[in-house]
Amino acid sequence: MSVTIRELNPNDVQKGLLETLKALAPVEIDPLNGTILARCFVTRRWLPRVHAFVAETEDGYVVGTATLLVIPKLIHHGEPVGQVEDVAVHPDWQGQGIGRRLMLRCIEAARESRCRKVILNCSETNIPFYASLGFRPHEVGMRLDLNYGGAIAE
Amino acid sequence: MSVTIRELNPNDVQKGLLETLKALAPVEIDPLNGTILARCFVTRRWLPRVHAFVAETEDGYVVGTATLLVIPKLIHHGEPVGQVEDVAVHPDWQGQGIGRRLMLRCIEAARESRCRKVILNCSETNIPFYASLGFRPHEVGMRLDLNYGGAIAE
Repeated sequence: MSVTIRELNPNDVQKGLLETLKALAPVEIDPLNGTILARCFVTRRWLPRVHAFVAETEDGYVVGTATLLVIPKLIHHGEPVGQVEDVAVHPDWQGQGIGRRLMLRCIEAARESRCRKVILNCSETNIPFYASLGFRPHEVGMRLDLNYGGAIAE
Repeated sequence: MSVTIRELNPNDVQKGLLETLKALAPVEIDPLNGTILARCFVTRRWLPRVHAFVAETEDGYVVGTATLLVIPKLIHHGEPVGQVEDVAVHPDWQGQGIGRRLMLRCIEAARESRCRKVILNCSETNIPFYASLGFRPHEVGMRLDLNYGGAIAE
């Protein structure tokens, strides 16, 4: 039987979307609730939220930043996932615990948003820093460069 | 000098935010442009977009799904990053190239949104599948479970 790829629409929750997602992870959304979620998704109201933080010196200079995305999910009881992005501390201010405080603020914001987990990707070098905050390695990051000639096998 | 952690506000672009982000990656936004971006960020208009796709059979049943987030960035010339989430194919329909077609649609949507790269996290087992689409391993995924007792060292 042929299969078509198209954009999600609100009725898909009634047509096998949740059963399909069960291949990935537990899904426990009752149909009514699921319809509401799907409709929100399509109308783009069901969007990730962004919490951006900075570290500011007494004289009002920004020397650090970190961003938390709160990503809505249909799997895992609909609990959102927090994703940390773009953690940076100005070179003159590194080694003073500023990155750690920014991370703790992101984790706090993730708890406030009732995220089930916080995820991030980092280099091998930075694993000990994130491990000291309770993070553990999980899965492999993959990337495909679009602007610089990443080859796509059709 | 003491440092305070607070939410980003639009003036931060003038106060060292871009210089701080340069610790992470190239930033090439002129100040005026940067102010606009920062303001959009704070008013939550500068939000990730969601493209959700499904694979539908001839008789209207959903047997696969994949989602692309298009995440705005201040680094790397402000080019967005595409992130693939929740790729799932119903167990009865696996092995027929449906996951591959869903991925190609996500990559196409990322190109349309002028993303500089597409990223995703996967298990070791799934690396060959994503490698066959041109992806390469990059960075380590880290996670902190919030609901199930992940320890945070304060």
